[in-house]
Amino acid sequence: MATETLPFLVIRHKVPVTLFILMYIDLLWCQPFTIPFRTPSDCGAEEFFDISSLSCVRCGPNQRRSTTGLSCVCQSYVSSYSVLCFCLQGVTKDGFGCIRCPGSLNNDGKCQCPPGDVLVERGLNGTLLEEARCETCDEDSPALSVPNRNGDRYIFCLNKICLFEEIYITHCTLNEMDDFAVPLLHRNQIKSNQITFIVTSHVQVHWYSTFVFLQGFSNLTACQALGNMCVMNMHSFSSASTDACGLFNTISRFMGALSSTQGIPYWRANLPWLYYGDEPGHASPVLQNDPVPIGFSFRGKNKNTDFRLLAAVYDVRGEFLRWEQVGGQNLQLCPQPKTKQAAAFSFGTAYKESCVLSVAQLFATHPEPLFYDVFLDLGGGANTKLLPLPTLIQNQQYNGRFINQESMSNWYLSRRMFLVDTLSGREKSTSSQPKVIRVASSVKIRFQLVPRTQEGKVFPPLMTVTYTDVLITDLNTQTVTTFAVEYEMDQSEARLKTDIALGVLGGVAVLYSLLKTISWKRRIASSLIDLETMVKFLLFYAGDLANVFFAVTVGTGLYWLIFYKAQQFVSVLLPLPAQEEQFVTYIGCAFALKAVQFLHKLALQVTVDIFLIDWERPRTKTNRSVPVSGESKHDTSPVSIWRTYFVANEWNEIQTIRKISPTFQIMAVLFFLEVLGFSNLALRDPWSNLQRSPEEYTPSYSLTLRYGVAATLWLCIGLLQVIFFTVFYAHFVEDKIRQFVDLCSVSNISVFILSYRCFGYYIHGRSVHGHADTNMEEMNNNLRREAESLCAQRGLLPNTEVQTFQVSLTGRLGLQYKRIQESISRRNQPSRLTDASALSSLEPHFKAYQAMNHFLGSVIDHAHSDMDYIVKDKLMFENVIGMEFLEPTEKSIFYNDEAHTFSNVLYYGNEATLLIFDTLFFCVVDLGSQSFVLAAVLTYVQQVIFRFLRNSLGRKNLANKTLVDERFLI
Amino acid sequence: MATETLPFLVIRHKVPVTLFILMYIDLLWCQPFTIPFRTPSDCGAEEFFDISSLSCVRCGPNQRRSTTGLSCVCQSYVSSYSVLCFCLQGVTKDGFGCIRCPGSLNNDGKCQCPPGDVLVERGLNGTLLEEARCETCDEDSPALSVPNRNGDRYIFCLNKICLFEEIYITHCTLNEMDDFAVPLLHRNQIKSNQITFIVTSHVQVHWYSTFVFLQGFSNLTACQALGNMCVMNMHSFSSASTDACGLFNTISRFMGALSSTQGIPYWRANLPWLYYGDEPGHASPVLQNDPVPIGFSFRGKNKNTDFRLLAAVYDVRGEFLRWEQVGGQNLQLCPQPKTKQAAAFSFGTAYKESCVLSVAQLFATHPEPLFYDVFLDLGGGANTKLLPLPTLIQNQQYNGRFINQESMSNWYLSRRMFLVDTLSGREKSTSSQPKVIRVASSVKIRFQLVPRTQEGKVFPPLMTVTYTDVLITDLNTQTVTTFAVEYEMDQSEARLKTDIALGVLGGVAVLYSLLKTISWKRRIASSLIDLETMVKFLLFYAGDLANVFFAVTVGTGLYWLIFYKAQQFVSVLLPLPAQEEQFVTYIGCAFALKAVQFLHKLALQVTVDIFLIDWERPRTKTNRSVPVSGESKHDTSPVSIWRTYFVANEWNEIQTIRKISPTFQIMAVLFFLEVLGFSNLALRDPWSNLQRSPEEYTPSYSLTLRYGVAATLWLCIGLLQVIFFTVFYAHFVEDKIRQFVDLCSVSNISVFILSYRCFGYYIHGRSVHGHADTNMEEMNNNLRREAESLCAQRGLLPNTEVQTFQVSLTGRLGLQYKRIQESISRRNQPSRLTDASALSSLEPHFKAYQAMNHFLGSVIDHAHSDMDYIVKDKLMFENVIGMEFLEPTEKSIFYNDEAHTFSNVLYYGNEATLLIFDTLFFCVVDLGSQSFVLAAVLTYVQQVIFRFLRNSLGRKNLANKTLVDERFLI
Repeated sequence: MATETLPFLVIRHKVPVTLFILMYIDLLWCQPFTIPFRTPSDCGAEEFFDISSLSCVRCGPNQRRSTTGLSCVCQSYVSSYSVLCFCLQGVTKDGFGCIRCPGSLNNDGKCQCPPGDVLVERGLNGTLLEEARCETCDEDSPALSVPNRNGDRYIFCLNKICLFEEIYITHCTLNEMDDFAVPLLHRNQIKSNQITFIVTSHVQVHWYSTFVFLQGFSNLTACQALGNMCVMNMHSFSSASTDACGLFNTISRFMGALSSTQGIPYWRANLPWLYYGDEPGHASPVLQNDPVPIGFSFRGKNKNTDFRLLAAVYDVRGEFLRWEQVGGQNLQLCPQPKTKQAAAFSFGTAYKESCVLSVAQLFATHPEPLFYDVFLDLGGGANTKLLPLPTLIQNQQYNGRFINQESMSNWYLSRRMFLVDTLSGREKSTSSQPKVIRVASSVKIRFQLVPRTQEGKVFPPLMTVTYTDVLITDLNTQTVTTFAVEYEMDQSEARLKTDIALGVLGGVAVLYSLLKTISWKRRIASSLIDLETMVKFLLFYAGDLANVFFAVTVGTGLYWLIFYKAQQFVSVLLPLPAQEEQFVTYIGCAFALKAVQFLHKLALQVTVDIFLIDWERPRTKTNRSVPVSGESKHDTSPVSIWRTYFVANEWNEIQTIRKISPTFQIMAVLFFLEVLGFSNLALRDPWSNLQRSPEEYTPSYSLTLRYGVAATLWLCIGLLQVIFFTVFYAHFVEDKIRQFVDLCSVSNISVFILSYRCFGYYIHGRSVHGHADTNMEEMNNNLRREAESLCAQRGLLPNTEVQTFQVSLTGRLGLQYKRIQESISRRNQPSRLTDASALSSLEPHFKAYQAMNHFLGSVIDHAHSDMDYIVKDKLMFENVIGMEFLEPTEKSIFYNDEAHTFSNVLYYGNEATLLIFDTLFFCVVDLGSQSFVLAAVLTYVQQVIFRFLRNSLGRKNLANKTLVDERFLI
Repeated sequence: MATETLPFLVIRHKVPVTLFILMYIDLLWCQPFTIPFRTPSDCGAEEFFDISSLSCVRCGPNQRRSTTGLSCVCQSYVSSYSVLCFCLQGVTKDGFGCIRCPGSLNNDGKCQCPPGDVLVERGLNGTLLEEARCETCDEDSPALSVPNRNGDRYIFCLNKICLFEEIYITHCTLNEMDDFAVPLLHRNQIKSNQITFIVTSHVQVHWYSTFVFLQGFSNLTACQALGNMCVMNMHSFSSASTDACGLFNTISRFMGALSSTQGIPYWRANLPWLYYGDEPGHASPVLQNDPVPIGFSFRGKNKNTDFRLLAAVYDVRGEFLRWEQVGGQNLQLCPQPKTKQAAAFSFGTAYKESCVLSVAQLFATHPEPLFYDVFLDLGGGANTKLLPLPTLIQNQQYNGRFINQESMSNWYLSRRMFLVDTLSGREKSTSSQPKVIRVASSVKIRFQLVPRTQEGKVFPPLMTVTYTDVLITDLNTQTVTTFAVEYEMDQSEARLKTDIALGVLGGVAVLYSLLKTISWKRRIASSLIDLETMVKFLLFYAGDLANVFFAVTVGTGLYWLIFYKAQQFVSVLLPLPAQEEQFVTYIGCAFALKAVQFLHKLALQVTVDIFLIDWERPRTKTNRSVPVSGESKHDTSPVSIWRTYFVANEWNEIQTIRKISPTFQIMAVLFFLEVLGFSNLALRDPWSNLQRSPEEYTPSYSLTLRYGVAATLWLCIGLLQVIFFTVFYAHFVEDKIRQFVDLCSVSNISVFILSYRCFGYYIHGRSVHGHADTNMEEMNNNLRREAESLCAQRGLLPNTEVQTFQVSLTGRLGLQYKRIQESISRRNQPSRLTDASALSSLEPHFKAYQAMNHFLGSVIDHAHSDMDYIVKDKLMFENVIGMEFLEPTEKSIFYNDEAHTFSNVLYYGNEATLLIFDTLFFCVVDLGSQSFVLAAVLTYVQQVIFRFLRNSLGRKNLANKTLVDERFLI
């Protein structure tokens, strides 16, 4: 009987039975919660829009929907009492049911009790009685509810809380609550991290009394209002006290076993959905079990990047206002042009907007709080489905703990939020100035990608809200608010891969460095493993490890750049700034290690042994032996030193030339990054267009992408330059290295370079014309003869062209060279003692110079049988690993070297190291300062400084080793 | 009697008499119109706020102000009929007067006529009759107003327009107008440049009928409503048609002689102030006669930069809503953060904000138009004065002409504006969708500085409004709106000064160029004035004029930079972009002329005559004569050519060294501009801080300031570099030029350079040791001996140090040189004929080389008595004007030149030209692209290209002139 006349209850009690089962099936099948999208206008003529379940619900018999669509009214042809349209007996006080009356009916068709008596219509569990009872007012009665002395209101026994709990659970019948509300809600205090501020909640008393009014309209509204009050209290409750959330939870718990709405177990019938479950701990299954049933795609014909958030908006009185699209007017408090705000809802664009709001402004725009139930629109035209967004309130307290600031397993997800609450801080009346307002200072929506998805699937997005209480001293107070959308994916796999790559390559690097160390040991003709060996190994290892780090980081940067910016279906998302720390550390390591390698190479280069062998003999002698001393016969002209000067001068000049133009490199990179807009590729959004209009939203930069773009550009331009300079420029304009070798030949001077004690390079420069120290005409004739192949070839061996060699000396030869060399370059020590002695003390150096000239000349001429050498080709594998297999025990070995590897003792031969060092320097400065221009300027300064150092130290070394006066090295 | 009971009228008619006189005194005294700031709450208990005059006006006897403060009500103790508080007789129909009734009174205390009769209370001129008349309804009557057949309304005779005019003028009594309104307002069409769209104004009919209601409330409101309707029509009217504005104007004209409000002659009593005068042409006195009585100041203790605009806001029904501060919510339609929007009201900050608004949004935010009377708040605490802002409606038509788009003398200034009119485009009813909406697409406030003010005085700011009609096809239509604040000052004086400076300096430049031409003529030993001379003069003049332009533009830029950014009281305002055109043209001229000069210098440098004189003689000879031919004795060693190679090689290398490091220059400028933020100095606001937070508003850049900042920075850094390199670096690290001179000395080689036929440079490099072609030991000994001053000094004259000279040759010597030189460098022509002949054909060149060596050596050695020379000092004045006074007729003249001016044929000696050229190049690129980075990159590329050109052409020239093979110039 009652079920027939109480259609709301019928439906709500019937549906849960089936839905309850479905719900568990749902959970088993791992379907995310979704609800169909219905608006009041979607409901049929005999349906109304249930603001609690956000669905269309049939009206009772003889009813049709009201004009607002939010309730039902009687069909006009049925005579009616009250809201209920056809009661054979009386109408219940709330107007939603029929009941048999104990006595007569009043004008409204409701039961009438004798004065002093109170009408009791419901039992302890809230169900309607078969027949209403008139009970006499008796304050001491233990009954469910008793009228007060005046007979016009109920009084509740506060010490037995269960009593009124059971009243509310049925329909949130908050009627007659104003007497009761005061003690209950005194406890409702503003809780925050910063301020603990107890506002005596006259305001809330006021609202409760409004429920009395509201109750006459609809119980649904009252339930919403209670929920809103809980939301204003930031969902906080504890089992010890009784405030709005406690009350809500008690009701909710009671309803739990009975009902759920829309197949969602957390959503109780007739109640707003505030919590995920009755207690914390449901976060992980909600957030990480079921992907959202749509896929995001950045390009292609299925392009799907814009997502839409919808919010059901309620006012503080619990009334449903409208469906609103999130963005702009509501959740984004910061005033920004529409085009910029829209970027927040473009998938993959990291959006963050902060601004300072004045309280005066907030008062104007938010006279009273609005409450938002936020859903993700899953699309589908008429059958649009909505996915509720779980919300994490940072300030939420549960039994006094801020559980949502703890680890995820403790989280207590919730629903419904507000932006600005200027109401609950009002102390005396709703028209008074509030002492404190509560503002959602941070609203963050985080999307998490399903691991290993290829279709752009995400888990249900999590909305994180932080409220801040702003103490109002004057209206000019300001507060900060932020709206952000973040995209996250589990980076542990990527990190693991990076670490594996690092480990493997690092291992290979150890081997390679060991090889280098062994090669080095052999080249210095030592086999003792001492501390120096260890240090050397570490230095080699630094270089190799730097390369490993560099390769891995550039690879990672490029990977993100390509895979994030070019993917069609979303399968990767950028690491968040917090996830980039490790990456930045790797770059730092790469840079530091590379710097060590660079300085090491620099130190080696500026201490290299070099000697210029002059083959010219004085004119008066006709034998082709090397001149031992030109000054013995003063009448015959001495061999001019100017050729040696010329060669030394040129050697000095090629010390720091490179295979690229470093300044052009910087300028080109800057041009691409800043003028052509390649830096826009590093923005945290999925677009790859280079030019952005100033109207568009500009997301923040991703360090990973910035590094990826900058390093890739730098390397690419560097590579192009190397190709240009070695292929085109060297062939068609000039090749400084080849010019130097030619100059040696023309000037009749050989260059002997020892980079280690027993390893070095030899440039054979003996003139094919016998004499080079001649006048212009003869020089030209010589050159012309050579051009016409009228004379011998320039090579060391007869009839060969090869002029450049790597030399691997026997220990004996190395020792001999070292001895003479020491007497040449011991110059500085004695000259420091007295200036006067410097004059005479130079004499022995020239002797030593002559001796060295003679010695090396005779060695090359095979004059010393005990220090002879052979010439051979180097094996390819030897070239690759940079180590000689043959140990020069008997004879020294001259390896043909047409690749001019003597440039290894110059900048020219170390372009890779320099380029990588510059790249890392540029990137490190940029990561630190987020300014490509500053990075470019500092890279330039760094290059200038090191070039200057290399030049001046190299020049000193050259002067020291070859005795050429520094004044000629200009 | 009537005057006593009609207090409104009394006051309004009395005041004008005195104000009318005051008004003309005001005009004579040239005081700007100001009104005191009053709000309804400022008015006393017996005053009401007159929304027409925006002032407090006393209520009538027995009245006090109503709760809104906008009208008066009867004091409670007075028994009252209607609004009027004490009528002994009847009350008039509008409730504002007392009148004797012909018959009985009705319940409202008004006169009652028999059914069918109509009550007539006013005469033809609108004045109340002594006694009301009851007139019988008669449609044919020529009387003022007659009831229609039903007797419930009036009918007006449309063919006699004067009739109802005289009705309206009195109080805008628009009562009973709805029948009449239709024909009248059919003509009220939407006029715009883009669309002519006639909306049958049912909407306006609707409003007119609302006047009937309004009229019962207050006539003031009706007048405002009429005014608003005129404003919605963009103030347009013509004498031919009768629409809202025409009606308003007719009323206004009639009232003109009678009244004015607040001492402002254009403001009629009881009417809104819509126009400045009855006809166009008042713009100039209003805008340029009287400064606003406050001064703006950028810094110091009187800092006053923020101005405040207030607006009286009316709704479309003519009701006064409130005073509002302009900004943010109202005139600035674009959503932007508060901090940015506030910049619009900071004096001196050029503000411009455009955005795209969707029509849907406009509908939401502007359901009906609001009307703004904008005033400038002059401050003054309680006595705050307001200055009305004259408004220029771009779309305003006057007799069909858009007079406000013509010259200022035709302007018709007005008052009152609206932002969005979504009402008048509705066709059938106010609830229908409008076919078209009208939006203020551009609101621009322009401040004009009083000429020669030292106190920051401005003329009344002019607000220019442009309305755009947006045809509504769907709600997603978008429209663009702009809000801008501009600052202008009369630039004609500055322009005049610039032109005078240009003229004067240009004249000086002519003289200087003439001098240069004369000097050049002398140096080429020619006195004929031919075409070449003219061209040469123009080339010189290009360089000098470029300097003039450069100096003037940099001066101007710096002037604005300093005076605008550093001024305390505002005395100058930046030129507007339109006013900068001339400035940009000047920069373009400077750049173009400088480029001509630069190319000219480049061409001269790469064609200069140079010869290296080798003083070395073969060892076997002991006489110190110059070697004629080394090859004659083949047994003795020839003189080595390597020293010549060395010197030539070094000369080749110093060709493009500069006094600054050009790349460092670029980097440093970029660093200052982009990293340290000097570019922010070029923003159009008065602040000089370098770092701006992203929350702040960023104004546009001023080209003038950008040029000023960039050029100044470039010059300053260049200057610092020049000082560093010439003072510090040259002394403590290396000085390439001095090194070259020393090298000449050490290598026993002199350099002879002829930049013109008879003018050039000579570097004396004869070794003081006799021989330089020796071995290392002797070289070192020589150097040491010289360091210890054991040998002669290096100078050309005995016992002097001077090695470098400017030489002014006699024509004879010049001719001789030229002849030999031609036979040296004629090399290329014959060798092209046949390759085989190239071999032998080189022979004569070496001969010529030897001859030249001998010839120049003997000239230096005074061996030719007919080509002798003297050495003397140059006069200071000669140095300054760059011209020699003595003509070398008999003997050539060697001028001592310790400043190494031979570097004039190198980059080194032309640093000023190069620096200015680079500066201009940088600035021109920047002005074109507004990107300092691009400018830097292009400047770098330009430098590289020209350096490469200079180097390779110079090298070719050197090889050509000295016969040193290009392969040695590396």
